[in-house]
Amino acid sequence: MLIQEVAYEDSLNLLTHLRLGRIACAEGAQPYVVPFYFAYDDGYLYSFSTVGQKIKWMRANPLVCVQADEIVSSQEWVSIVIFGRYEELPDTPELKVERDLAYKLLKQKGIWWEPGFAKTIIKGSERPLLPVYFRIQIARITGHHGAPDSVEGVNLEPSPNEQASKHSVQSILTALRAKLFSK
Amino acid sequence: MLIQEVAYEDSLNLLTHLRLGRIACAEGAQPYVVPFYFAYDDGYLYSFSTVGQKIKWMRANPLVCVQADEIVSSQEWVSIVIFGRYEELPDTPELKVERDLAYKLLKQKGIWWEPGFAKTIIKGSERPLLPVYFRIQIARITGHHGAPDSVEGVNLEPSPNEQASKHSVQSILTALRAKLFSK
Repeated sequence: MLIQEVAYEDSLNLLTHLRLGRIACAEGAQPYVVPFYFAYDDGYLYSFSTVGQKIKWMRANPLVCVQADEIVSSQEWVSIVIFGRYEELPDTPELKVERDLAYKLLKQKGIWWEPGFAKTIIKGSERPLLPVYFRIQIARITGHHGAPDSVEGVNLEPSPNEQASKHSVQSILTALRAKLFSK
Repeated sequence: MLIQEVAYEDSLNLLTHLRLGRIACAEGAQPYVVPFYFAYDDGYLYSFSTVGQKIKWMRANPLVCVQADEIVSSQEWVSIVIFGRYEELPDTPELKVERDLAYKLLKQKGIWWEPGFAKTIIKGSERPLLPVYFRIQIARITGHHGAPDSVEGVNLEPSPNEQASKHSVQSILTALRAKLFSK
């Protein structure tokens, strides 16, 4: 397998097709990572959650990292890592446009009934359903993709041919789209 | 969908079947999360990587968080979150037993040729292949699982019946095992 970088435009392209990612936040020196659903739009990842450890930590320290991937096989995959900043979208007149956009995007992606809004029983009692809308402002994106070496089982010399690399990302994107749209 | 906690023993049981997780580390207030492969054994997650941002950050701050899951469907899934501590396993006589164990476990799980050891081309030049063995000492585990409400589309009153919950985790474990062993 050969691992190479993914171009910025391809990373954004991938983000528009992905829904599930992992979001990491930190309190002091302790990081915390959980799965979350998001909808990408114009430099932001929109999401929502109920108030829990993740929201409390991000309110206190807005620096986050998001990782999302699509794994076609263990030899063929794309992984995107984003450094960004947490922005809460409370129900205020000033943020009505952003909050309505979040609602619209999440509804389009069918994210309404996902974990963030599901009934949760912790230690025998129900967690209150207070939806918190938020978005992650993307500061930096890096993407990597893995692809099989052209001859199976033989360690070829690296040939960072741009055309070949681009073709490889395109084939993963094609496989990814086929997979997503068949759902 | 109903989200409930997973018992400690079930979480450990799941970990023995999983290989792919996401590991979060932090530098100052900035978290960082990437996918990684691991092998669980007796309170530790064993893994290896080449020297990069993840290893550098964990050397400076050993507090990490690992998340791993198995998603049968968007309505049926298990997610495990681990708080732990990074321990590097350098090639020294004092750590020979632990390092040999890491090698054995990773080989058993077929993790050798996975991303951590793959040829990586970054900005046109090959990343040096210096394998770093490490393990994560597990300090705390929490697990959650989602399962469909018993009547589709109807919001049932919560019934945190232990037997029902246990049955549900078991059914996910069964589905998970069937999936893993069919590979």
